[in-house]
Amino acid sequence: MEQLLWKHIQNVREKSPLVHNITNYVVMNNTANALLAVGASPIMAHAHQEVEEMVNICQALVINIGTLDEYWTVSMIQAAKTANRLNKPWILDPVGAGATSYRDTTLEYLLSFKPTVIRGNASEILALAKLNQEKTKGVDSTAHSNDAVQAAQYLHKKFGSTICISGETDIIVAGKEMRLFNGNALMTKVTGLGCTATAIIGAFIAVTGDIVEAAAAAISLLNIAGEIVAKNVEGPGSLQIHLLDKLYNLTQTEFDQHIKLSA
Amino acid sequence: MEQLLWKHIQNVREKSPLVHNITNYVVMNNTANALLAVGASPIMAHAHQEVEEMVNICQALVINIGTLDEYWTVSMIQAAKTANRLNKPWILDPVGAGATSYRDTTLEYLLSFKPTVIRGNASEILALAKLNQEKTKGVDSTAHSNDAVQAAQYLHKKFGSTICISGETDIIVAGKEMRLFNGNALMTKVTGLGCTATAIIGAFIAVTGDIVEAAAAAISLLNIAGEIVAKNVEGPGSLQIHLLDKLYNLTQTEFDQHIKLSA
Amino acid sequence: MEQLLWKHIQNVREKSPLVHNITNYVVMNNTANALLAVGASPIMAHAHQEVEEMVNICQALVINIGTLDEYWTVSMIQAAKTANRLNKPWILDPVGAGATSYRDTTLEYLLSFKPTVIRGNASEILALAKLNQEKTKGVDSTAHSNDAVQAAQYLHKKFGSTICISGETDIIVAGKEMRLFNGNALMTKVTGLGCTATAIIGAFIAVTGDIVEAAAAAISLLNIAGEIVAKNVEGPGSLQIHLLDKLYNLTQTEFDQHIKLSA
Repeated sequence: MEQLLWKHIQNVREKSPLVHNITNYVVMNNTANALLAVGASPIMAHAHQEVEEMVNICQALVINIGTLDEYWTVSMIQAAKTANRLNKPWILDPVGAGATSYRDTTLEYLLSFKPTVIRGNASEILALAKLNQEKTKGVDSTAHSNDAVQAAQYLHKKFGSTICISGETDIIVAGKEMRLFNGNALMTKVTGLGCTATAIIGAFIAVTGDIVEAAAAAISLLNIAGEIVAKNVEGPGSLQIHLLDKLYNLTQTEFDQHIKLSA
Repeated sequence: MEQLLWKHIQNVREKSPLVHNITNYVVMNNTANALLAVGASPIMAHAHQEVEEMVNICQALVINIGTLDEYWTVSMIQAAKTANRLNKPWILDPVGAGATSYRDTTLEYLLSFKPTVIRGNASEILALAKLNQEKTKGVDSTAHSNDAVQAAQYLHKKFGSTICISGETDIIVAGKEMRLFNGNALMTKVTGLGCTATAIIGAFIAVTGDIVEAAAAAISLLNIAGEIVAKNVEGPGSLQIHLLDKLYNLTQTEFDQHIKLSA
Repeated sequence: MEQLLWKHIQNVREKSPLVHNITNYVVMNNTANALLAVGASPIMAHAHQEVEEMVNICQALVINIGTLDEYWTVSMIQAAKTANRLNKPWILDPVGAGATSYRDTTLEYLLSFKPTVIRGNASEILALAKLNQEKTKGVDSTAHSNDAVQAAQYLHKKFGSTICISGETDIIVAGKEMRLFNGNALMTKVTGLGCTATAIIGAFIAVTGDIVEAAAAAISLLNIAGEIVAKNVEGPGSLQIHLLDKLYNLTQTEFDQHIKLSA
């Protein structure tokens, strides 16, 4: 499995897929840089008049609702609809699911276009599942990992999506289940590294048909890079920057030495 | 006083307040990272349909008009109004006050919701005061510190706000007056460190009832971090990054060795 | 010529021109920081109600369509129109020209306000020229440098603009032609360094009447800084940061040692 994952990393570096991002203002620069660092080509575009054309020329779509508003929500829906129609892989990052009813309504609509992958933390995945269950059957909102896994299985069955639950351990749920153990706690002190994970997964599903492997390779790449870099930095500012360096120059040897997962 | 200020820094690190930011595009990533580095939890959200809910779940609100437009202005007014109604502490950063009549009109409206704190440079504070005085009594627009202090006293009396005037010396005006002497000139070559000061003050007023102390602790933390870091960097790029590291790892010993103020 | 270019760099550092930017979300922070690092004062503002006032108080205008939408397009047109009316220098960055019809329509309109400078890569310059030629005479879209130079000459004749074609070699076309040979391939792995070139040229045309020299000085400054920094970094994250340091602290000696051009 580990060697398979490395091949996907090489694959992105060689094929340099075009990835269309409709994402939040906070992370745009970092996710564009992260996509470049792993070898992909990022495009950021959200105008209603061009969203469909952009989805059309890209190999994958990333939708992240972090700083949504009425205009951007329409952009996201147009793009997701187009990706669904064209059978292009797309990933949804449901930032702040459950925090406001506006986010939940928007997410309910986006889910109807069957994202290839959904990536969020446990409470976001739980909130998404809750949206789609009758209220009396609602999963509990206290974010236990096991609850989140159940919620992910539910979402997988209902929408066919591969679900990535981020946390100290990352869990990928799609019929089979995979657990990834890399990373470092300092990564939670850098804004938007979850959004970066989402963007990188976007690059990997652009070139890899096996979605679970694509997600596992992307998440492992980011977490191993973070883990290596975190040992030699004094704080989150340096981590954010050196992480981009390491995404760019990570070698197979480093990857092999660090990768920890159970499938 | 100095030991009191350190306690507020520890307090933010321990309580990790949720801070809602409606701020400008230029600094979103940096202020989110600065809030994380000092121990707070940032939220960026501006959609009209969710602004009230977001103010409701946060402990403080930051409004920064840097890249305002018609949509964002409504978001800011909704949020300020809600914070005022719920008695939640909020801070206003009047970026570019006096530069255009659109900014001035917007600021006049926002002031009516009585910001807990206003932070700006001398010319912005002078412009704000001018807005609210009859024209014949208008303070002079040549930005002398003393004029700015008078303008701040006027704003404090009229709106009850604590006023922070940024400059080589930072001055906090709220009945009593405090002067803070830390910082480094290279900090003016990094975009948005004023906005970062505003955001950090937002985190401190979220957990500290004494607003002058909260502002003093926040400003001193940022300026001491900048002062320490500026000695070992070659330019503004590195300063921006290492400043985040230092906000995260500043120790009480470093704080005690550097703090310079007069109350 | 080389000594002339250095004088323009000193000129920007001394005069600190106010540069108004209507640019894309991805690069706003970096271009603001780059402008500060070279000695200029950046303003970012796009509200319809203040765009004209802002153009009025600035020495130059930068328009970059990277993340355009209907609102921002109006801002750009208002600003370009005002700059043209007031005879203020302005630069257009036609990001993604040719990618969607919406971009092309917007660019056609913006060109009518006769940008002082247009900076793009070869395919963007070719796409711009295509927009303005009858279809049967259209230049070929396969982006050969020579084709791009022909396209640039066409655009120069039609709009009077100085055209900067970015690539491994940068080419400035305006009647006379200049080729600049500095830079490093790692710069293409940092998002928005083209946009940064555009912003810096904006600062230089604000203070220098000779537009070709202004563009040559700006591009050489950025590319030499990148070239020097690239030798000592491990990846694109560090390059992005140390580049800002070097823009700030580059000396005449370093400039003289590295500059490579043919006029």
